[in-house]
Amino acid sequence: MKVNYKIWLEEENDIKAFGKGPYDLLRHIKVCGSLNKACQAMGISYSKASSILIRCEEALGIELLNRTAGGSLGGGSSITKEGEGLMVSYDKFIAEVDLLMKQLYMEHFDHLR
Amino acid sequence: MKVNYKIWLEEENDIKAFGKGPYDLLRHIKVCGSLNKACQAMGISYSKASSILIRCEEALGIELLNRTAGGSLGGGSSITKEGEGLMVSYDKFIAEVDLLMKQLYMEHFDHLR
Repeated sequence: MKVNYKIWLEEENDIKAFGKGPYDLLRHIKVCGSLNKACQAMGISYSKASSILIRCEEALGIELLNRTAGGSLGGGSSITKEGEGLMVSYDKFIAEVDLLMKQLYMEHFDHLR
Repeated sequence: MKVNYKIWLEEENDIKAFGKGPYDLLRHIKVCGSLNKACQAMGISYSKASSILIRCEEALGIELLNRTAGGSLGGGSSITKEGEGLMVSYDKFIAEVDLLMKQLYMEHFDHLR
């Protein structure tokens, strides 16, 4: 037996604002260097990814992506400073949540097989 | 902005074993004194509730319900000692998880609006 969970940030009206999905998208954009390549790597449509990011930006009140229009060198996208900060916060948050969940599980349910 | 989550116990093969749904069912059985009345109160079918409980009992390896067949006094169901213990553990677990989630959220995301 073990513990599992889903966790996300949401607005006061209970609408999801940020979680694993958007975080994974940002991480792919960071690695791939563009939203288009990130979408290809993740197998999701460009329009879906765009709407996820716009939704998060609106909810969080910060810009996540520096959007560069295509030119002779092709377009690209990079994560804003605020976006990088959010990713770092989320990383640390999840690492601590994960550790504490496992500790609390052991504390309360260690008697289960 | 705030944090929200879902949490559950699962077997090593990732199949859910216990969480909010079964806990709520047990709580209703405890209050109502019978599985039948609990189902009426929750608006779920007797067969669905039974299969949830059997599934949990199999996964956890403990009996949750003392099942009494109907007679002149009518049937009834009570929670076993192990079931009561599980409910108490779950209560404490969730209370601590809830507190820590909020603390960790404040620690890492207090800068968000």
